Amino acid sequence: MTTPVAPDVAGPRAAYFVSDSTGVTAETLGNALLANFPGIRFLKHTIPFVVTDAEAHTVVASIDADADAGRAPLVFTTVKHAALRGILATSKATLIDLLAGHLTELETALGTTASEQLGQFHGLGDTDRYFARMRAVEYAIEHDDGQSSRALDQADVVIIAPSRCGKTPTTMYLALQHGLRVANYPLTDDDYPSEGLPRAVAKYGVRCFGLTTTPLRLSQVRHERRPSSQYSSLEQCTIELRRAEDLYRRNRVPFLNSSTKSVEEMSAVIMQTMKLRS
Amino acid sequence: MTTPVAPDVAGPRAAYFVSDSTGVTAETLGNALLANFPGIRFLKHTIPFVVTDAEAHTVVASIDADADAGRAPLVFTTVKHAALRGILATSKATLIDLLAGHLTELETALGTTASEQLGQFHGLGDTDRYFARMRAVEYAIEHDDGQSSRALDQADVVIIAPSRCGKTPTTMYLALQHGLRVANYPLTDDDYPSEGLPRAVAKYGVRCFGLTTTPLRLSQVRHERRPSSQYSSLEQCTIELRRAEDLYRRNRVPFLNSSTKSVEEMSAVIMQTMKLRS
Repeated sequence: MTTPVAPDVAGPRAAYFVSDSTGVTAETLGNALLANFPGIRFLKHTIPFVVTDAEAHTVVASIDADADAGRAPLVFTTVKHAALRGILATSKATLIDLLAGHLTELETALGTTASEQLGQFHGLGDTDRYFARMRAVEYAIEHDDGQSSRALDQADVVIIAPSRCGKTPTTMYLALQHGLRVANYPLTDDDYPSEGLPRAVAKYGVRCFGLTTTPLRLSQVRHERRPSSQYSSLEQCTIELRRAEDLYRRNRVPFLNSSTKSVEEMSAVIMQTMKLRS
Repeated sequence: MTTPVAPDVAGPRAAYFVSDSTGVTAETLGNALLANFPGIRFLKHTIPFVVTDAEAHTVVASIDADADAGRAPLVFTTVKHAALRGILATSKATLIDLLAGHLTELETALGTTASEQLGQFHGLGDTDRYFARMRAVEYAIEHDDGQSSRALDQADVVIIAPSRCGKTPTTMYLALQHGLRVANYPLTDDDYPSEGLPRAVAKYGVRCFGLTTTPLRLSQVRHERRPSSQYSSLEQCTIELRRAEDLYRRNRVPFLNSSTKSVEEMSAVIMQTMKLRS
């Protein structure tokens, strides 16, 4: 964590993610690369849909303005068209071409050349995927927080946990990014007297996945919603988490601790554990 | 679209996305690259959390099994640790290293070396981002389909459209990926008699964004929900879309046609138009 700031730049450096499509790929990989330099501050700009020469020149102008202001810009690009990349290369920035080099490697490996078309990767050629995601998101909304037991037999996974352990965002991520049908069910005080799983989900035990967290973290998150309540007290959080973890263990429900994990990480673990695919 | 299948491989080729973290970056860029070869079929495998030598050797064994079966595997990797990349390189596959090369470029540009730690990019160092996303997803669920007018003044954007034009998935994507507060409101027959915007959202006109689609596409999507109904008839869809577009134009509500766009594309256009940032 002691990476020094580059010697010749005073303030934050400019980082551009320039794309001929949505910018999702450029942002994802660009951010993954920048994360290796935690000691340097970056001012980030995403510029999607750069498809004409004029648009590329506009981007170059704004990059050069940053360069002139001493923000030594970095440009991460996934623009495919060679002419547009040529224009971006005229800017006063370090250009990091995320696609073109790998495309050449792939062409060699596959023994064929990539179609020269400006490929719309996220384009809706993929109607099935769109429907699957739409249905999955609607399913997730309907089944959020134990609201409905309708069609619970269709759930790919049922996430169970005490309130505020991260069920909802994880559910939505699995639905939206992977088209999975995910229900979630909140464990409350009523669910603990018995030995088994709560009645509402007992039939789907093999599809249950549990979340837990640390009492401190849970108390902090609950405090956000209801400050200084019994609900958010460290004592109450400690009891609920201990009971939930006991319930998971007794019923052989796989579970993970969400306290140090992002939504992406939790989703990846759940898919791996439950052997689910997009 | 006439890219030939590589001559020496009969069935689909194996494509692996191998990561020391969630696999999101490897999948995103790997898929963007493979999309350039629409004529070749790929059998895709995502392998997240490869962090030990033993795990890397297990991955190599499964890649080699694919190679021996004639599926000429491609491996896209974002694994950072050199020793692990060394193990992956011993497999009988074409290895495409998505991170290491660019990291070297970046080190040169920044005049410093990347921290050698196995960086957890998606790690929850970023508690603020987690809270923002969690709140945004809950806000989106509460305000889906015009369900609540509470705290509508806090919306970053209000998406309006007739039923089944893609409001819900786009809303959820903006909430989850960008932490934006998005409400959505369905335009129904009741909303058209007047000249202005529907009463529920009239106060927030400058934050409204409209969706439309083609009558054929809308009819197809509605048919999924209620086959052979008045609701899904081409005639009804044509009328509703014409009315909605008139309403957008009259009230200067920016709008886009969702029929050929993915959720990612719609979200990028909305953010660009409404000048929203993550």
